[in-house]
Amino acid sequence: MTSFIRNQWYVAAYGSEVGRRLFSRTVCGEPVLLWRTRSGEVTAMSDRCVHRRFPLSQEPSHLDGDQVVCGYHGFTYGADGVCVGVPGQRRVPRTARLATYPVVEQDSFVWVWIGERELADEKLIPRAPWLDRPGWTVVKGMEPLNARYGLLVDNLLDLSHETYLHGGHIGTPEVAETPITTEVDESAAVVRVSRHMDDAACPPFYATSTGIEGRITRWQDIEYHAPCLYLLHSRIAPVGTPPPAEEDGSDPDAFHVEVVYAITPETEGTTHDFWAVARDFAPEDEKVTDFLRESNRTVVLQDVVALDVLEQALQAEQEGYQELSINIDTGGLAARRILERLRREGAPAGEPAVAR
Amino acid sequence: MTSFIRNQWYVAAYGSEVGRRLFSRTVCGEPVLLWRTRSGEVTAMSDRCVHRRFPLSQEPSHLDGDQVVCGYHGFTYGADGVCVGVPGQRRVPRTARLATYPVVEQDSFVWVWIGERELADEKLIPRAPWLDRPGWTVVKGMEPLNARYGLLVDNLLDLSHETYLHGGHIGTPEVAETPITTEVDESAAVVRVSRHMDDAACPPFYATSTGIEGRITRWQDIEYHAPCLYLLHSRIAPVGTPPPAEEDGSDPDAFHVEVVYAITPETEGTTHDFWAVARDFAPEDEKVTDFLRESNRTVVLQDVVALDVLEQALQAEQEGYQELSINIDTGGLAARRILERLRREGAPAGEPAVAR
Amino acid sequence: MTSFIRNQWYVAAYGSEVGRRLFSRTVCGEPVLLWRTRSGEVTAMSDRCVHRRFPLSQEPSHLDGDQVVCGYHGFTYGADGVCVGVPGQRRVPRTARLATYPVVEQDSFVWVWIGERELADEKLIPRAPWLDRPGWTVVKGMEPLNARYGLLVDNLLDLSHETYLHGGHIGTPEVAETPITTEVDESAAVVRVSRHMDDAACPPFYATSTGIEGRITRWQDIEYHAPCLYLLHSRIAPVGTPPPAEEDGSDPDAFHVEVVYAITPETEGTTHDFWAVARDFAPEDEKVTDFLRESNRTVVLQDVVALDVLEQALQAEQEGYQELSINIDTGGLAARRILERLRREGAPAGEPAVAR
Repeated sequence: MTSFIRNQWYVAAYGSEVGRRLFSRTVCGEPVLLWRTRSGEVTAMSDRCVHRRFPLSQEPSHLDGDQVVCGYHGFTYGADGVCVGVPGQRRVPRTARLATYPVVEQDSFVWVWIGERELADEKLIPRAPWLDRPGWTVVKGMEPLNARYGLLVDNLLDLSHETYLHGGHIGTPEVAETPITTEVDESAAVVRVSRHMDDAACPPFYATSTGIEGRITRWQDIEYHAPCLYLLHSRIAPVGTPPPAEEDGSDPDAFHVEVVYAITPETEGTTHDFWAVARDFAPEDEKVTDFLRESNRTVVLQDVVALDVLEQALQAEQEGYQELSINIDTGGLAARRILERLRREGAPAGEPAVAR
Repeated sequence: MTSFIRNQWYVAAYGSEVGRRLFSRTVCGEPVLLWRTRSGEVTAMSDRCVHRRFPLSQEPSHLDGDQVVCGYHGFTYGADGVCVGVPGQRRVPRTARLATYPVVEQDSFVWVWIGERELADEKLIPRAPWLDRPGWTVVKGMEPLNARYGLLVDNLLDLSHETYLHGGHIGTPEVAETPITTEVDESAAVVRVSRHMDDAACPPFYATSTGIEGRITRWQDIEYHAPCLYLLHSRIAPVGTPPPAEEDGSDPDAFHVEVVYAITPETEGTTHDFWAVARDFAPEDEKVTDFLRESNRTVVLQDVVALDVLEQALQAEQEGYQELSINIDTGGLAARRILERLRREGAPAGEPAVAR
Repeated sequence: MTSFIRNQWYVAAYGSEVGRRLFSRTVCGEPVLLWRTRSGEVTAMSDRCVHRRFPLSQEPSHLDGDQVVCGYHGFTYGADGVCVGVPGQRRVPRTARLATYPVVEQDSFVWVWIGERELADEKLIPRAPWLDRPGWTVVKGMEPLNARYGLLVDNLLDLSHETYLHGGHIGTPEVAETPITTEVDESAAVVRVSRHMDDAACPPFYATSTGIEGRITRWQDIEYHAPCLYLLHSRIAPVGTPPPAEEDGSDPDAFHVEVVYAITPETEGTTHDFWAVARDFAPEDEKVTDFLRESNRTVVLQDVVALDVLEQALQAEQEGYQELSINIDTGGLAARRILERLRREGAPAGEPAVAR
């Protein structure tokens, strides 16, 4: 029994990771081979040769034009996965063909669909447009997490942990103290958690990047598209700054940061933790860029260390274990319910679970 | 099915290891958090936050006065395990409480009771008073053992291995050659093994520390309090020294060394190997102290290497394996029988196994 | 359920590895202790003391004349496995005896028989006489393989992989292109695969060692004696060289290389990969010797890396996996069938599987 939700789009890589070198990443337990054709299209196929299961990403496997040549016995495949050559004979068996995966490059990410191909609707891919939009400057990375992906979902949906785990970086006492409001859209599989702090200390992450010296209004608006994409809309402004204009949402005196996480299960107990931070201020300031990259990576690694430890602790539990949930967990518990439903249905978000 | 005997006192730490820094040690599979209150009392509680099971010993968890603050979301606990604060709300759930363990600091050790609390009788704790008594000088340490604790019990109850595994340190031919006498007190769960060598070579461990140059009378009197404490009363004297006085046991011309092992199961396959050596001679002589510390640590590590290898060998056995026991194993076999009985009964040593 | 075929001779070591130092190697899951008596005979016995299963190869276990002394408690054994001394008592239990293994030193190898002793017929040992014959110069080694032995059998029976995995060393395009002929002798458990290239490029492995500068006739004649010995008779000659004489097989103008692999399962997932290369030319030329040793070791390590990766890939397969076989796999598939039969029968090659 797998715990993966397969009929979903997942981020397999940043587009910048995929080129003319064979590259592999495991998504929901399936090893996916990623490469670009000479014309620049991203291709996603099974990373196992049909002959003897040799990984096609393993040297001396290589690209020859728009064909993949297995490094063990030379089985050769086109971008459509069809085998076009085998050693020692002219005839290529008709069934020699690699599984391919629907793939979409969007918002700087490479999205793949692991499940049933006929359900792969591009319109289901959640958006993070700031990662690839003029006027926004982005820093990003990916950290391997030795923990089940659910622990990262828990972590991100309850930001009160910023006060404790990330104190000195992004946490201040107000984060843990300020109540949240939670909205759940079951049919769209979206959870929204908001925390608006009217008068809060400005943590170093924002003080250094924005230059604000006094206290701030700090809004955290989370939008989690289960299971794969997490958006944190962060608004920072000196106390007293007018709110966004009601008519058009314009908000010229505030600083906006869009924090994006793509949460991709690798195996049952490991996760690809893609993180990106986009900002609409000081777009050309390299110092701000470097500072935000280092700061956010530090924060992500604090989470990675904590969640890796937590995964080990959970695996060592001798029997079932109990948790105790409180108000701050409302969003996380809603996310768990949605994930459980998606698992049970085997269906894409927003789609009815029809018999198939 | 666990092989742990839970209704027992076990040594979790030396008192000197526990202070105002959060410290964790796993005993019989349970992670125990140890720290001292400001008034110096040792406190033992579950090392898992009730909220999401985060280890309370993991940074940035920390002590705040006499309260433990979880480093993940800030759940805060008093020394009695009761949760006194949670993030984002005033009300603390009534059930938010860490399990605590009965704890006794005695003979330099911190003893904890893992099993049923109402059976935790302090009078059941076996004593090793030399470790904390005027006139005795002590060296000690703890080595992690990657082997089931039964292998250490076997090892210590059959000292004939000193001749082979510890030759050049504490072993001489006479140890293996001299027959033993064994006494078993089933109801107290104590095994006694004695080996009295009347005329033996003096191994470097004793020659260097006592200054004796010729042959010696060497008595080894083992007293094993199953499952957790092992005492070796060692008497060394030049050949011809009168025996201890019958009336009062006084024995002024002999050298006495009390070797103490606390044997604490960590997991099914790993053990905390606490060792200490107390002597009643040359109490202020730093050279003797340093020599005994280094020598005994060397000997303990010889055992650790051998038992780690043995554990690996046993785990690789493809089916059940056979052993062959001889006279030297009488004490070890008696200990195994007692351990098996205690496991079966789930009862503390010396207590009748009543239905519960 | 083990997958080992036990009633077989396996190579446990090169004779040169076994001397007056206790040496252990695991064969089909059984740890075998190997040493030479003072008169030079190789002895193979269980590497576990009958007392407490301590490995006799583990220091401070040692040889004392022609006796093995256990480093834990001093149990002492003769070359016949019989225990001749135990600590603390004169009487040695009658049942104290190590299992010994039939052992034959032949063709530079130490062969052992793991299965039923009464079936251990020396005449069943396949021969590799070039490894120990005047006029032949040999380089050899053993590489540990973290893969099931079947993957090495697959690898060696399909040399088309030389073109891809070993290009630049021993592979050229003609290897993969040239069809093979396969012969299977089911009753003798021998598979023969031949590939005769009449006009082929000369790969560096042969060009450098023979000095041939132009194109070559290259014959590869494989002879696999399941499960344990693999011979590759390799004939290299400039194009136009006359074939071997029909009357006596003499072939003075060609270069002959005998590549030998002994394939010994260590555990279910690991293998001892013994390799040797014997040649009948330039026998004293140290440069050729050094070159062939380095080249062949490089090639073997390319296989080791590939098969270790493949083993990991297979272990990560979530369910059963499919392979697709083509003409080049004829020999490998025949070998698999024979191995499966031997496993099922539990019988030595060539012997009827009688009830026992």
